[in-house]
Amino acid sequence: MIVVVGKESPAYVSAAAGARLRFVDRLTDAEDVYDEVEAVIGRVPPDVLGRLPKLRWVHSPSAGVDADLTPEMLASQVVLTSSAGNGGISLAEHALLLMLMLNRDVPRWMRAQNEHRWDHYRHSELAGRTVGIYGLGNSGLDLALKAKAFHLRVLGVRRRPDQPSPNVDVLCDLDQLLAESDFVVVTTPRTPATTGIFGADAFQRMKQSAYFICISRGGIADDDALLTALRTGQIAGAGLDAHDVEPLPPDSPFWSLPNVVITPHNGATSDGTLRRSEEIVVDNLHRFVTGAPLRNVVDKAAGY
Amino acid sequence: MIVVVGKESPAYVSAAAGARLRFVDRLTDAEDVYDEVEAVIGRVPPDVLGRLPKLRWVHSPSAGVDADLTPEMLASQVVLTSSAGNGGISLAEHALLLMLMLNRDVPRWMRAQNEHRWDHYRHSELAGRTVGIYGLGNSGLDLALKAKAFHLRVLGVRRRPDQPSPNVDVLCDLDQLLAESDFVVVTTPRTPATTGIFGADAFQRMKQSAYFICISRGGIADDDALLTALRTGQIAGAGLDAHDVEPLPPDSPFWSLPNVVITPHNGATSDGTLRRSEEIVVDNLHRFVTGAPLRNVVDKAAGY
Repeated sequence: MIVVVGKESPAYVSAAAGARLRFVDRLTDAEDVYDEVEAVIGRVPPDVLGRLPKLRWVHSPSAGVDADLTPEMLASQVVLTSSAGNGGISLAEHALLLMLMLNRDVPRWMRAQNEHRWDHYRHSELAGRTVGIYGLGNSGLDLALKAKAFHLRVLGVRRRPDQPSPNVDVLCDLDQLLAESDFVVVTTPRTPATTGIFGADAFQRMKQSAYFICISRGGIADDDALLTALRTGQIAGAGLDAHDVEPLPPDSPFWSLPNVVITPHNGATSDGTLRRSEEIVVDNLHRFVTGAPLRNVVDKAAGY
Repeated sequence: MIVVVGKESPAYVSAAAGARLRFVDRLTDAEDVYDEVEAVIGRVPPDVLGRLPKLRWVHSPSAGVDADLTPEMLASQVVLTSSAGNGGISLAEHALLLMLMLNRDVPRWMRAQNEHRWDHYRHSELAGRTVGIYGLGNSGLDLALKAKAFHLRVLGVRRRPDQPSPNVDVLCDLDQLLAESDFVVVTTPRTPATTGIFGADAFQRMKQSAYFICISRGGIADDDALLTALRTGQIAGAGLDAHDVEPLPPDSPFWSLPNVVITPHNGATSDGTLRRSEEIVVDNLHRFVTGAPLRNVVDKAAGY
């Protein structure tokens, strides 16, 4: 029995032909068949995980699985697959959008439009600048492609430098990325190795004219250190789609900093991401029922 | 004698070595030497043009020379050169910015940020859409390059289809561009042939879901027709950096349309544009004093 948390999908039924498939609004709606569940498309809370004796596979609706990797999941032999790749293109679009908005001070134009005011000023352009991409997965590599078309120099940090990194001019370490980048863009998953890696020391090493952009997960930056860097002019500004606490509370000081653009973890919430998510599930359902190796298997030790 | 309207520049002096060069704040400040002026770097008003008997060359500070091509200039044998190419990259960045802002409804996020409100919603992405570029000069071709990195299909209309058009998937006519584009981007100069070409008929042929973007000159679109199209939902929205009347008057209805992003003819006002403008002048000064053919000579009949 495969349980899908979500709306009934003929494409899923067809991909899992021959298997028993049940669609539920919440996983607990399948409590009567917990004994038979072999796979779940959706999140499995830690307390339910131990109650599914036949469970072999869980597919997360997220590209980043930090929320799925509970101690119980880490300790189990259940295979976890992710939706990695569903939002990469959409996130790379968002990163470029935030870079352009900060580089040209779009909030200033928006204020002027609200007031019917012609506010003409000199701004900068991306061409000739350096972007440093921290993490060269799906979104990072697509951002590198876009950055080259914007005539940017591209630095990149990745955990596996042996993997191909097209459109990256220099693979480097974090020190070089911080020292040379006009835009530091965080695209990496949140894992024990990346949590808090952008702390006070990292912001001090950035150029004062540089912008910090995060499109993947909050908590990779230390929010207190980031706030200090933004308030004291250690860095020029930030574009933040991911935040340590979400939703960002109404009293968060980030909302009203003049050099910060906030979006509500919304960079990948596109029609294209939804379509690609479904394609990944269809592919994996077919693989599961035919006994083929699953795609997007999470390396639990690495955290993604 | 070469008169430069603008700040003293050692690079210009060096490029024009051997010639007499005079820097002035306004052209009329050189009235005492009108008889000797052979070239002007800057605008020449129609009434002054007839008072410069030795004038052979005028270099416009603008990429688009619609304002320079007065009847007097059209009737004279003075060579007019433009700054075409100075702002192409910066304008292409601006076009992509406006496309992303409209596609994702950035004004909505900006309102939410002002109110410290977490406004998470599903939006679209550029990947897979079609952009139609009306005019494949410097900005149009650089936009095509960027559009391919955004996984867009690229249609283009150009006056000289025999010229190379890299990154353009289909060279077509205006009808096809209007019918198939999700984003119609005007990059063409304003000439007698392009003025008013986007009228009521053109907007009716666009998809209702499509956006109209103008980064070159106002007046290529008929503002009344555009306003009607935006108000009645004939098209989804617009991103307008160029306007028929500039500055856009405070009582213009365009400011407050919810589906319009207004910027104040500011797309190319970047540090890079300034640098490239100076490089073009340096190059042309050197060519002028050494008797080499000038660059960026305007085809007065074509209007650019």
